[in-house]
Amino acid sequence: MSLTQEKVEKLDQLFKFFTIIDKEKEIFRQTYLADGTRKENDAEHAWHMAIMVILLKDYANEPIDELRTIEMLLVHDLVEIYAGDTYAYDEEGKKTQRKRELESADKLFGILQEEEQKLIRGLWDEFEDYETPEAKFAHTLDNLQPVLLNAASGGKGWLEKKPKISQIMERNKKTADGSIDLWEYVGKKYIRPNITPDKIQEDIEFDF
Amino acid sequence: MSLTQEKVEKLDQLFKFFTIIDKEKEIFRQTYLADGTRKENDAEHAWHMAIMVILLKDYANEPIDELRTIEMLLVHDLVEIYAGDTYAYDEEGKKTQRKRELESADKLFGILQEEEQKLIRGLWDEFEDYETPEAKFAHTLDNLQPVLLNAASGGKGWLEKKPKISQIMERNKKTADGSIDLWEYVGKKYIRPNITPDKIQEDIEFDF
Repeated sequence: MSLTQEKVEKLDQLFKFFTIIDKEKEIFRQTYLADGTRKENDAEHAWHMAIMVILLKDYANEPIDELRTIEMLLVHDLVEIYAGDTYAYDEEGKKTQRKRELESADKLFGILQEEEQKLIRGLWDEFEDYETPEAKFAHTLDNLQPVLLNAASGGKGWLEKKPKISQIMERNKKTADGSIDLWEYVGKKYIRPNITPDKIQEDIEFDF
Repeated sequence: MSLTQEKVEKLDQLFKFFTIIDKEKEIFRQTYLADGTRKENDAEHAWHMAIMVILLKDYANEPIDELRTIEMLLVHDLVEIYAGDTYAYDEEGKKTQRKRELESADKLFGILQEEEQKLIRGLWDEFEDYETPEAKFAHTLDNLQPVLLNAASGGKGWLEKKPKISQIMERNKKTADGSIDLWEYVGKKYIRPNITPDKIQEDIEFDF
C-alpha cells in the first residue's frame, strides 16, 4: 500500500472535481451535430476541437504550443457548469455573461487545492484574455467548429435562427487573428454557400 | 486571398475527417453519467480523460509526455465509428473486436492524406500496443474513469449487470502498470465499497 494520507486527500479533491465536471456533458449548445439529430454539448465540442488542434496546428498564424492550446480548449467551457451556455447572438445574456462566469470559475475551481487551481484557472484566464497565439488559435476553432457543424447539418441552425451575415462577421471579427487561412477557408467553403434567403441573411456585403 | 489550391485540397480532406468523426458523439458506452440520467458517449469519455491527464499526470509510475497521452486518449475510440463499442465483459464481441477495429481504422484514417494518416494511426497503434509509459497511463484512465462514473451514479451500471469482482480484476490486470497509486486509490475508494450483494459480486477475494 503506497498511498500516504496526503496523497489520498489530494486525490479526494481531484476526483471530486472530476465528478462535478461530468455536468459539462449536459450543457447543451445551440449547434446541432453534423447529422442534425440533436444539439451538441460542451464536452463533445471541446473534444472535437482538441482533435482539430492535432491536425490543424500548422495553420495558426504564429507557431503555437499544441499542448497548451488543447488544454485551454478542454477546460474553456467548464465555467458554464454553473453559469450556463450563453448563445453567441443572445445580446441580453451576454451583458451578464462575464460576471456569471467569473463567479462560476471561483466556485468550480475553488474545489481544487492551490496548485491545481492555479493550473486550471491559468488556462481559463489565458483563453479569456485572448492574447497569446495559443488563445487566439483556440478562439479561431471555437468560432469555426460550429460553422462546420451547421453546414454539415444542412444549415439546420441557420434555417431556424436566420442570423444576419453582419452578426456572423461581428462574432468572427477576431477569428482571423488565430488563423487567416482557416477563416478564409471556412468563409468560402461553409459560410458563403449558406448565404441564402432561408439561412444566413445578407444584410451587408461578405467579401470572400 | 492566401489559400493555394494545394492548401485547399489538404483542408478539404481534413474537414471531411472532422465531419465524419462527429459520429463519435453518438457511440454510446455502457457507463452511465455521474448523475445516472443516461449513458456516456465516446467523445465525452475522451474529453473527460484528457482533463484527468492534465491533473493526474504526476501519478503515473514513470514520467509521461502529457501531450502524447492526451492525443492518444482523444483518438483512441475513433475506430468505434465503424466497429461499434465492445462492452468490456462481452466475451463474444471481444473475439471479433480486433479485426473489426483494424478494418475500421483503415477505412477511417484512410480519408486522410499520408502525413496526417501516419500521425493519427501512430497514436492509435501506440495506444493499442500498450507498451510506452504514455499508453499504459492512458489505459489506466480508460479503465478507471468508468469506475468513477459507476460509483458516482450510485452503482447504477453495477446494479444492472452485477459483474463479478473476478471480471473486474481480470479487466484491470494491467491498470496498475500505468499508475499503482491510482489503481490502489480507485480500488479502495470506489470498488471496495461497491462489493455488495446487489452490485459487484464477490466471487474471489479482493485484496485492497
